[in-house]
Amino acid sequence: MKARVHVMLKSGVLDPQGEAVRHALGSLGFEGVNGVRQGKVIELDLADGTDEATVTEMCEKLLANTVIESYSVEMA
Amino acid sequence: MKARVHVMLKSGVLDPQGEAVRHALGSLGFEGVNGVRQGKVIELDLADGTDEATVTEMCEKLLANTVIESYSVEMA
Repeated sequence: MKARVHVMLKSGVLDPQGEAVRHALGSLGFEGVNGVRQGKVIELDLADGTDEATVTEMCEKLLANTVIESYSVEMA
Repeated sequence: MKARVHVMLKSGVLDPQGEAVRHALGSLGFEGVNGVRQGKVIELDLADGTDEATVTEMCEKLLANTVIESYSVEMA
C-alpha cells in the first residue's frame, strides 16, 4: 500500500526557497504570483496493513520537524 | 486562487534522499517500508483568472527539470 505525506513550513515561518521561486517567476514574466510556499512530498511504499497511526508516528519522529513544519498524511 | 504543483523524480531516476529516508525509518524500527520517493510540492497563490496552462508553463520553464522530473498540477 501507498502513503503520501506532505510536509510544509508552518505559516509565519520564513520560506526563502518559496520566495526565490516567486522572484524567479516574476523575472520570467509571469504576473500575478502573490506568494509561493515550497514543501516536501514523501511517497511511502508500505507493507499491507500498515495503518495511518504508524505513518503519523514516522512523521513525528523523522519526516517533519514539528517545531517549524506541519504535515498531512494521505493513505491510498 | 491557489495552485499546487507536485514535482517527483521520474521512476528509474535514483533518489538518494528517498533512499536515506527509507534507511532511517528502518533504523528507527519501522518495518515493512519497501520504498520511499521524495519530491517537492509548490503551493502558488495566484491572481484570480490564472489558468492551468499558465501553471503548466511555469513548470516547464522553472519548477521542474523535465529531463529527470515529472510534475502534476492541481488547481483549487
